[in-house]
Amino acid sequence: MDNLASLRSVENVRLVDRFNTRQQIIGTLFLTSTHIIFIDPEGKRETWILHSFISSVDKLPITQQGCPLRIRTKHFFSAEFIITKERDCTDLHATLSQLKPDSYEKLYCFLYQAPNYLEKIWDPFLLATEYMRMGVPNHDWKVDDSNSSFDICDTYPPLIYVPTSTTKAMLLGSSKFRSRGRLPVLTYLHPNGASITRCSQPLAGFSARCVEDEQLLQCILKTNSQSNTMYIVDTRPRINAVANRAAGKGYENEGYYSNAQFKFCPIENIHIMRGSLQKVLEVCEMKNPSMNQYLNALDNSSWLQHIKAVLDAAIFIARAIDIEKKNVLVHCSDGWDRTAQCCSLSSLLLCPYYRSIHGFRMLIEKEWLSFGHKFSDRCGHLRTNDNKEQSPVFLQFIESVWQLSQIYPTAFEFNERFLISLHDHSHSCQYGNFIGNCEKDRLDLGVKERTYSYWNYILQNVNDFKNSLFRPQSSYASEVLLPIIYPQTLKFWLNMYHRFDSGLLPKENIPNTLTHLVDHTTALNDHARLLEKRIRELRLTLENGITTPTSNEDIHELQDNHNITSFIEHDSGLSENELNQTTIESIQPKSLQPLNSSSDIESGISSDYSPQNKHLTSSYILQHQSSSEINDIPTLERIALELNSIALDWRSYNTPFHCTCSLPFDSAQRKYNCWRCGENFCIRCIEHGIRLPGLYSNSLVPVCKTCLRSIKLSPVFVDGSMPNKSNYRNQTDIKLPTSVFDQKQI
Amino acid sequence: MDNLASLRSVENVRLVDRFNTRQQIIGTLFLTSTHIIFIDPEGKRETWILHSFISSVDKLPITQQGCPLRIRTKHFFSAEFIITKERDCTDLHATLSQLKPDSYEKLYCFLYQAPNYLEKIWDPFLLATEYMRMGVPNHDWKVDDSNSSFDICDTYPPLIYVPTSTTKAMLLGSSKFRSRGRLPVLTYLHPNGASITRCSQPLAGFSARCVEDEQLLQCILKTNSQSNTMYIVDTRPRINAVANRAAGKGYENEGYYSNAQFKFCPIENIHIMRGSLQKVLEVCEMKNPSMNQYLNALDNSSWLQHIKAVLDAAIFIARAIDIEKKNVLVHCSDGWDRTAQCCSLSSLLLCPYYRSIHGFRMLIEKEWLSFGHKFSDRCGHLRTNDNKEQSPVFLQFIESVWQLSQIYPTAFEFNERFLISLHDHSHSCQYGNFIGNCEKDRLDLGVKERTYSYWNYILQNVNDFKNSLFRPQSSYASEVLLPIIYPQTLKFWLNMYHRFDSGLLPKENIPNTLTHLVDHTTALNDHARLLEKRIRELRLTLENGITTPTSNEDIHELQDNHNITSFIEHDSGLSENELNQTTIESIQPKSLQPLNSSSDIESGISSDYSPQNKHLTSSYILQHQSSSEINDIPTLERIALELNSIALDWRSYNTPFHCTCSLPFDSAQRKYNCWRCGENFCIRCIEHGIRLPGLYSNSLVPVCKTCLRSIKLSPVFVDGSMPNKSNYRNQTDIKLPTSVFDQKQI
Repeated sequence: MDNLASLRSVENVRLVDRFNTRQQIIGTLFLTSTHIIFIDPEGKRETWILHSFISSVDKLPITQQGCPLRIRTKHFFSAEFIITKERDCTDLHATLSQLKPDSYEKLYCFLYQAPNYLEKIWDPFLLATEYMRMGVPNHDWKVDDSNSSFDICDTYPPLIYVPTSTTKAMLLGSSKFRSRGRLPVLTYLHPNGASITRCSQPLAGFSARCVEDEQLLQCILKTNSQSNTMYIVDTRPRINAVANRAAGKGYENEGYYSNAQFKFCPIENIHIMRGSLQKVLEVCEMKNPSMNQYLNALDNSSWLQHIKAVLDAAIFIARAIDIEKKNVLVHCSDGWDRTAQCCSLSSLLLCPYYRSIHGFRMLIEKEWLSFGHKFSDRCGHLRTNDNKEQSPVFLQFIESVWQLSQIYPTAFEFNERFLISLHDHSHSCQYGNFIGNCEKDRLDLGVKERTYSYWNYILQNVNDFKNSLFRPQSSYASEVLLPIIYPQTLKFWLNMYHRFDSGLLPKENIPNTLTHLVDHTTALNDHARLLEKRIRELRLTLENGITTPTSNEDIHELQDNHNITSFIEHDSGLSENELNQTTIESIQPKSLQPLNSSSDIESGISSDYSPQNKHLTSSYILQHQSSSEINDIPTLERIALELNSIALDWRSYNTPFHCTCSLPFDSAQRKYNCWRCGENFCIRCIEHGIRLPGLYSNSLVPVCKTCLRSIKLSPVFVDGSMPNKSNYRNQTDIKLPTSVFDQKQI
Repeated sequence: MDNLASLRSVENVRLVDRFNTRQQIIGTLFLTSTHIIFIDPEGKRETWILHSFISSVDKLPITQQGCPLRIRTKHFFSAEFIITKERDCTDLHATLSQLKPDSYEKLYCFLYQAPNYLEKIWDPFLLATEYMRMGVPNHDWKVDDSNSSFDICDTYPPLIYVPTSTTKAMLLGSSKFRSRGRLPVLTYLHPNGASITRCSQPLAGFSARCVEDEQLLQCILKTNSQSNTMYIVDTRPRINAVANRAAGKGYENEGYYSNAQFKFCPIENIHIMRGSLQKVLEVCEMKNPSMNQYLNALDNSSWLQHIKAVLDAAIFIARAIDIEKKNVLVHCSDGWDRTAQCCSLSSLLLCPYYRSIHGFRMLIEKEWLSFGHKFSDRCGHLRTNDNKEQSPVFLQFIESVWQLSQIYPTAFEFNERFLISLHDHSHSCQYGNFIGNCEKDRLDLGVKERTYSYWNYILQNVNDFKNSLFRPQSSYASEVLLPIIYPQTLKFWLNMYHRFDSGLLPKENIPNTLTHLVDHTTALNDHARLLEKRIRELRLTLENGITTPTSNEDIHELQDNHNITSFIEHDSGLSENELNQTTIESIQPKSLQPLNSSSDIESGISSDYSPQNKHLTSSYILQHQSSSEINDIPTLERIALELNSIALDWRSYNTPFHCTCSLPFDSAQRKYNCWRCGENFCIRCIEHGIRLPGLYSNSLVPVCKTCLRSIKLSPVFVDGSMPNKSNYRNQTDIKLPTSVFDQKQI
């Protein structure tokens, strides 16, 4: 980046989009220390490309308009910038080609200054907590600290979980017999007692054996009394496993592991996967292919076939655990790529917890970070990384989760945006989480002291990452998922690979529309609750001729009045009259399936905005009314404010193409409705975390800046909004260019 | 059907599903005069197959369990029924193979007894009305009645529209020169004056010419002064057109039609399309294909390639009309297959009207019915139809519309259910609309006197066919659509071809969930409106110490009271206080984009349930209050009833798997929420068209039978529900088995 100073901006650059060839936009290209920025003076386009994302920069043959420079990124952006002067293009090319850091210390995460709402706080992830959640240690499984100084295996966590019956000698012996010392350790324990253990391939060659390793596997087998055998799932095609024997590696000799059933899964190695992704990218860049050429090229890439292989292996493991109740030991070669994919996906299928945002984080922390997936090597964070070590292993996992979420739209708490963000930040180096190749690397680099945590960023923006169709109460969200993957069910992930080609995408983003509708329903429901309460109060007051009850005595008098009954019963769903007239039978469906508090959650309303109130029973109402409702009949002005504070109609999601701040909306961006005026705003123009007087619940909800000012100026408005740092970002803080990346830019 | 009496039912039949092979269900197979019915005594499954749908019945090799009979239908149902006794199977096979009628008179539409809510009323379609909508006749175009007795062309309508400058001689000459007498006539006139005309191929052979035809084309060219040339779009591959010359047909000789630009579109003929669909069905029935095999087979079927060819041709025509402002003459061979596809699709792209339900009907009536698409031949309605005449031409049109609706989810008023229904009923022969091969056939058969109309069925159930994402105000819904069809944007239509393979489909139907959310939002919005009104009334009353205003004098007094202001202003969005404190600028966004009545429509709420109320301005409120609000302060009991009548929480769409009537829900079925109790019900258990007291609007909304009974028994309930025959079916009428087909069964 040394010659950066000499070249800070290039004017009259034409940006040519992959799928909008007619739309050439002329603007200026700026080079900052972290981004390439293209700005069109008319404000039609503002494109930010983080240096860490750049995967290739190519000079293309000169055209009449100038010298085209093609930039491709790791998150599937590809564009040509046509530069008038060839000299500028050559300089730019040279500069950009040298951008990738040559040491960890120069990575973006060590420079990144987050907006104020993010702090350098690392919510501690303790592997032990996750194992405790699974009930470990217990009678069968113990924790072992032999690796506390990374002596046994430097790519494993300090604490490992092994059968209680194992000895130190077994662990040591087994670790010496396994590639990279990665001995079999517990990674998932199912409620039925069956477990997933993971390791690397044995150094068996054609004949070597290791008694300690065999003993360790016997110990694992015996932790589960339900079966006399266990599976050893080798996630490689059999031919690969056999070929490895020539190098003194290979797989377990069936003769020495008599109680094991062997299963090979045809997941290809990192080199084939890298080649496959390369072919996918070529498919994406095809110019005017015929249907035939497209399907052929997609087929030839084998990408979906590889995804299916990963999913099929994971489903095999999940079936073995849940249906056959057998222990499963999973390995590939080194046990940090295919093994990580299969163990994490089968855990996701087996355990609903991992389908929540928090649980999914735990899954990543455990299977990918603790057990040493080589993020820096696979993503190519450094210039010094071997290109042949790069491979889309994590992307395949992310895509497999997405494919499952397409089959089970209600089973996952997180949305597509979350998965895309997770993939992108494994490459961005903006947060310290995915830096290095194992826990030891990150400890040595001190990432927890020196960088921001990705999970903190997610937590602060959690509403953007929630799936509005999620229903924790539904069977798919609460049970083991054992799908059959038909080729017909796998889709090419347009929103991942073509996300920047808006010309090719549908003209409406359905998940965003769903979120919009769910939020609107929540707002109306909450408002109607308050209105119903106010009507009850007002009618009671009117009925009793009391204009302003001020003491508790008044309230008790009110309660004694028999007329209350007809009002309070509405919440039970049936009036006295009806109860007398309808038969028990006709009410039954209602009593068998009561509308209770869970219905909010079931309808997908699980955002922080949702009212937390239970569906009130008559008796609860009475209690509740005495304590708060009647006690607090609001003034005339307050009621005016309440009615005034909630928009009944919301502007539809896709109507406005610009925010009032003139920022153009595109399909990748989330728009926010102001709950007070109902208009759409961009993330910069919406304020989070206000308590609106027109809501029954005390929820913090989003409003636009104008409405916020208006409502705060009202003399009767009591500002109950304590900006809750841990739940809501303070928007005014994040107008810095760097933060824009978080939300939208490339 | 003569031996039907001898075989009315077979017991102990196993139903084997294509994608649920483990799920064999044992039940009884019944044969009625119209359906094959499979009923499982445990009520897990009830399958109705209309005879008209059966496309093939095959005896498969005997297995241990019995003799399998495979039934395939024209709407992509395929199942094996394993029959214990071979004799029964042979009998059944013989019976079923003879089911198809051998004459029009025996078609289902002439036997079908519709539920009472449907009447044998044919909303008259007058071609002239549709042309008048386009501004025809006018200076350039006239109506001609030469064909009033079908003398010129028996597959054309009695009235045809031609340039005003044409003579009878030209029309007669041209009709003799064109295949089947199908001379060039107007089918679509764009607001810019450019037009689409359609015809069949000329009988040109290698050298023949027809001066009248050349003159007619000159007349057509001259109707549009914006261009000196016009397009002749031959929708066949050039090689087909050339080959036809040998048979004395072919295409226009460029030398004789000097002002024409020729364009060939590579849409294949009916035989290739039939073969392609056959291959698609084979793809659908593949057992455990690999990803590779599946993509290969899909590619080999060329189905999506054919769809793309049809769409590309239509888009070419639409561009020529809208961008190049040139007239386009479209033909293929006979001008009733590819020509119908291209003319109707390009009209749909050009004219937003055709994207509404009513407009789409007009499009079908005009392009497919009036201009003689051979439905009976192409769908194979009769045993006597030549198998080689069958072809999925109409299906391809329907799928092309669906593909467009996937690209523009907000541009179409109708939903996927509507398109599937339309396809199915072109085969079912349940309604008279699609019987015969042209208007003349239907006139001769007297279908309008003797059968029910499909459009009447649609009209009576219109809410089921509305797209909840439709936004008539959005640009996509109100402008010309000129997409580029990338191969990536075309999807295999799972919900059409795999609709009965629920194991393969996503576990949630997103469009249904959207409909559910939109309905819930509408209900809450409407209820909140009423509640806000009541609060205003009650507070006014309280404020003025008036408990029951009975005379108009009281009301005027109330209005004069200055205190009203603070209440009524809430509708303007800003209180007096705020108006003083906020700057004009900060209010601007709100005044520039006012929340008006259209926001309901824009948010996709365009169902009959949506409130029709304008967003009220202060002045409107004053007026409105004086006339109705204050005048009508309800009693205590009435308010209790109002609060009682609307459920705030709705049961989520996919939670219940059974209706309270024990009917199992499946993904194909629409569920209905009762607006009063919020539970889900099947179509048989929901009552339509009740006015609930808790709503501001007077909309007719759905409630369940139990709630209906309860609410009607309330002494203060005024039944304002006049079951509006033209908008709501009377549910109690449609419990007959025949009607079940309409909603769900196969």
